[in-house]
Parts: sequence; structure tokens; C-alpha cells
Amino acid sequence: MANAIDFYFDFSSPYGYFAATKIDDIAAKYGRTVVWRPILLGAIFKITGQQPLPTIPLKGSYAKHDLARSARLFGVPFKLPSRFPVAGQAPSRAFYWVGDRDPVLARTLAQALYRAYFAEDRDISSPEVTANVAAKLGVNRDELAQALNDPAVKERLKSEVDAAIERGVFGSPYIIVDGEPFWGSDRLGQVERWLETGGW
Amino acid sequence: MANAIDFYFDFSSPYGYFAATKIDDIAAKYGRTVVWRPILLGAIFKITGQQPLPTIPLKGSYAKHDLARSARLFGVPFKLPSRFPVAGQAPSRAFYWVGDRDPVLARTLAQALYRAYFAEDRDISSPEVTANVAAKLGVNRDELAQALNDPAVKERLKSEVDAAIERGVFGSPYIIVDGEPFWGSDRLGQVERWLETGGW
Repeated sequence: MANAIDFYFDFSSPYGYFAATKIDDIAAKYGRTVVWRPILLGAIFKITGQQPLPTIPLKGSYAKHDLARSARLFGVPFKLPSRFPVAGQAPSRAFYWVGDRDPVLARTLAQALYRAYFAEDRDISSPEVTANVAAKLGVNRDELAQALNDPAVKERLKSEVDAAIERGVFGSPYIIVDGEPFWGSDRLGQVERWLETGGW
Repeated sequence: MANAIDFYFDFSSPYGYFAATKIDDIAAKYGRTVVWRPILLGAIFKITGQQPLPTIPLKGSYAKHDLARSARLFGVPFKLPSRFPVAGQAPSRAFYWVGDRDPVLARTLAQALYRAYFAEDRDISSPEVTANVAAKLGVNRDELAQALNDPAVKERLKSEVDAAIERGVFGSPYIIVDGEPFWGSDRLGQVERWLETGGW
């Protein structure tokens, strides 16, 4: 069986949001599945010394312009959130906790959380907002609220982030196909070409 | 007459080198010309707080891998130089000085300098190496050597860099089409689409 594709993303990453709308379709064209892996760029940026895009002089202004333009190109609704970036702990923990019970639902949840944040300007860093989004998909709100504070769930996310760093993940989206890493939503064309040709 | 395309690049930028092999052909397809504008990322990084790619943990390793892979995709010879990055003063000053006399020759010189650095591992930050590359194209070596130390030529480069910063340029390559900025060699497809459609 062909290897699954690893799709690393941060819930506060707009380019991750764009890629999340396409990655499953691209993989399916080549008979591949995708393992979605939310990570925390904040933890990774401590190692790489990078700063969140909007805070970087010159590059931050470009990024705002490029995000709106990229959203139009990807054909997805987008509005730069009032608070950006935000911490991804709540949505990431929700994802892994739901995913251990229902992987398909977890993916639907990830897409709904991304839309809530980047299309509807809802602050998904809030456990309540994340719980509201999940509850609408049939997740038990009380159980989820408990899970978001469960040390085991916190540890699960931490170990996922550590494993990502171990693999060299430094940005979002970060996609690994048969050991080959691709960073950025503008590399989806190369991801597809790699899947089609096996490399170049 | 259609606006010329502004092509900003640093002589020490491998992605600038890749883009330099394509930008004129892309522009010509849409009846456009290109104004080549070497800049100094070192000066710009002082403002943005960015670091040279190879020095960034995790991202630096990815960049090395990505550069080799991108070179194969662009179909250009590439070898990561022994000294990388290097200061771009000598090649940039040579470019502007030659360009004021012969713009076509200046572009040929830029391409030859890029090849010398990224395909032949010659350290073009050295005025002698830059002069050797230029002399091979018929540039008078003594006059050029003098120009590289001419305060007016130094000032010319400095004012080009200042003007680039004023326009928001923070990376290489950085391409402006009818006021629309595109950063990175992986945006050449979007540059072409913008030229074709007038935007989206």
C-alpha cells in the first residue's frame, strides 16, 4: 500500500488553511491518504528564531496583501482575523482527542475550525469557541471541555509537536510525501508533481 | 506602452538566480520588458530582522534540500557555493555601472555573474572575480576596477537599495508587475498569470 502523506499545519496559519482545502483531493487523485497533524508554530519558532508574519517589517505588509490574493486564487472565503495569530492549543487538542475516536470527524472538525477562524473571524484559541464548533458537528461538549484540560491530551499534543520538530518541520503547511518535504501552500503543485512522477 | 516589470534580486540569492533564468522570457510572452535591479539583502535584513537562510535552524536544512530540488525543476546547473551567502556589493556595482553604458550587456553580465557563483562556485563578492567575469564579456577591466571604488557608483547602489526598501522589497527575487508585488521564484507562475489576465 502506498505511504500516507503527512500534512502538518498550525490552526493559526492561513496558508495552512488554504492547503487544508486541497490536500485530500490531491492525495486521492494518486490513491493516497493524508494524515493530518496539527502543530504549534509558537513552540517551533522558539527554536528557529522566526517571528509571526504580521510582526515582520515590510514582509508583514506583503503577507497581508498576499493572503487576500492567495485566497482568491484558491477560491476560499478569507478575512484576516481581528486577533492574529492566536494560540492553537484548544483546537489542536480537540483535533487529536476527537481523532482518536473518529478520524474522519476530526478532519471535518479541522476544516470547520479553520473556516470559523479565517472566514468567520471567530477566535478558536478560546476553548469555548472550539467547543461550539465541535458541538455543532455532534461532539459531546462536556466530554470535550474535560479533554481540553486533560493532562494526557496536553501531553499528546506536545509529543506530536516534538515529533514534528524531530522531522524538521518548521512552518505551516509542511507536507511530507515518501520522505520528501514540501513547505508552503504554494508548493502544492510540486506535491502533486512528486506524487505523479515519483520525483525529479 | 505596457509598464516594464521590476525584477529585484540579490546576487547571493539562489532563488534570484533561478528566477533570473526565466523572467525575461515570461515578460516577452506578454510584450513586456524587465528592469533588472540588484539589491543587498544584508541591508534589508537589518530592517526586517531576518537571517540568511542557511543559519536558521530546521529551515536552513530544508532550504539546502529545496535549492537542489528547485534547480532540477528549473533545469539550471546549481551547486551550493563554498561561501554562502556573500556580500553583493562588487557584482551589484558592476551591474549598475555597466548598465548606465549598455543595459543589454549589464543583463548578460548579471546572468554570467549568477552562473559563476551558483554553477561554478566562484566567489563573486571579490572585485577581482567580478572583474574577471566582466572582462570576458568585453568590459574594460581597469575602468571597471576603478568604478567599483568610485563613491558615485557606491552611492548609486545605496540609493537603489533605499528605493527598493521604500517600495517594500524584503526578499529576492521580488517582482513588481503594474504595482503588484510577487516574492519568490515559486511565484513565477502567478506572475505569468497576472500578466495574462491582469489580476484576479
